[in-house]
Amino acid sequence: MAVARPAIYLIPVGGIERQVKKMAHPGYVDEKEAVQKRLRRIEGQVRGLQRMVDEDRYCIDVLEQVSAATRALQSVALQLLNDHLAHCVADAVKSGGDEAKAKLDEASEAIARLVRS
Amino acid sequence: MAVARPAIYLIPVGGIERQVKKMAHPGYVDEKEAVQKRLRRIEGQVRGLQRMVDEDRYCIDVLEQVSAATRALQSVALQLLNDHLAHCVADAVKSGGDEAKAKLDEASEAIARLVRS
Amino acid sequence: MAVARPAIYLIPVGGIERQVKKMAHPGYVDEKEAVQKRLRRIEGQVRGLQRMVDEDRYCIDVLEQVSAATRALQSVALQLLNDHLAHCVADAVKSGGDEAKAKLDEASEAIARLVRS
Amino acid sequence: MAVARPAIYLIPVGGIERQVKKMAHPGYVDEKEAVQKRLRRIEGQVRGLQRMVDEDRYCIDVLEQVSAATRALQSVALQLLNDHLAHCVADAVKSGGDEAKAKLDEASEAIARLVRS
Repeated sequence: MAVARPAIYLIPVGGIERQVKKMAHPGYVDEKEAVQKRLRRIEGQVRGLQRMVDEDRYCIDVLEQVSAATRALQSVALQLLNDHLAHCVADAVKSGGDEAKAKLDEASEAIARLVRS
Repeated sequence: MAVARPAIYLIPVGGIERQVKKMAHPGYVDEKEAVQKRLRRIEGQVRGLQRMVDEDRYCIDVLEQVSAATRALQSVALQLLNDHLAHCVADAVKSGGDEAKAKLDEASEAIARLVRS
Repeated sequence: MAVARPAIYLIPVGGIERQVKKMAHPGYVDEKEAVQKRLRRIEGQVRGLQRMVDEDRYCIDVLEQVSAATRALQSVALQLLNDHLAHCVADAVKSGGDEAKAKLDEASEAIARLVRS
Repeated sequence: MAVARPAIYLIPVGGIERQVKKMAHPGYVDEKEAVQKRLRRIEGQVRGLQRMVDEDRYCIDVLEQVSAATRALQSVALQLLNDHLAHCVADAVKSGGDEAKAKLDEASEAIARLVRS
């Protein structure tokens, strides 16, 4: 089975051409709308935080909303990671060889970053 | 020394009148612009995440940016908490009595929420 | 390829017969001595904490050692998880079918517990 | 009010004389037995982990117990921190001056370490 390999595109990021990995089918492709909906809600939470600070709201109440936004971001991360394991990593494992090991190592590093952040 | 007590206002939140605590001098009052700057940057990071998902960027690259936004939110939380301890809690402790104990307990709960999120 | 399925044994745990999953080859089988060495060191850290408390050592110094022990436990968790993905989950993915999905879901739940603890 | 200042003792740590802060009254002095009880239970959890690994128990079951031990360590940290805020930091705040600022900064750093571990 063919592993989805990222294509390398040159796309302008902030006016500067930069190499980025764009994929035909990232792990989250079937959940894209759900992920975007979560991210828009988190953007709303962060704008809500700015309003709270602007209104001199009580520190502890602001902190509670920061914790809520942090948890929401962690949930997005867990969803992306699950999709990645179930698709990108699983496909690489079925293909076997170096690609399998590389994808497993990369996933482990992402999990470590997540646990420590 | 007078403890800064939050005033209770009725302000409309999402169309519903809701009691919120607004303070003349929240702990972060002197850092307000710095906090807002951080929050605006985090809002930009979350919008950047939506662009990445829209462009089918590679899962691991998206995850890395989610971790960065999470760490940025935690830094805001730590700043708010420090300001809260150094002002609101410190003022209550100097005044003593029940207010001091209440503020210390409230801060402890906020720290626990932060550690567990 | 055969997936390593856990055998169900009845072993006495604290005097009560309890079903536990023992495996011929858990994911960490090749790293067993390394894992045990880390766990013995953590046990030593926790005993060191008891000594510090017994000696009335300064709160912040005790807290620093608690953070060190927590990070050490997280490192063990990450190692166990990596071994689990690279062996148990990878084997199930190669076999395919329901077992693959079950193992991926189970791993996702373990990652979520880890991120939130 | 007198702030509890740590005395500096020379005690042998691992055969080497090392300066350590021992206090007449650390913040946790009234909770010492409760803290020790929690630490002894965590030591038992870590020994239980070694038994599980020795018995080739299933990775996910071992991971669940690692998460439990991690959460237990975090609870000890939160208790130590609360006691520290309510006693050492509060006493320094009442005394005022540089000592107050130093203790608040030190507590903030400990909270940051905790949140990020």
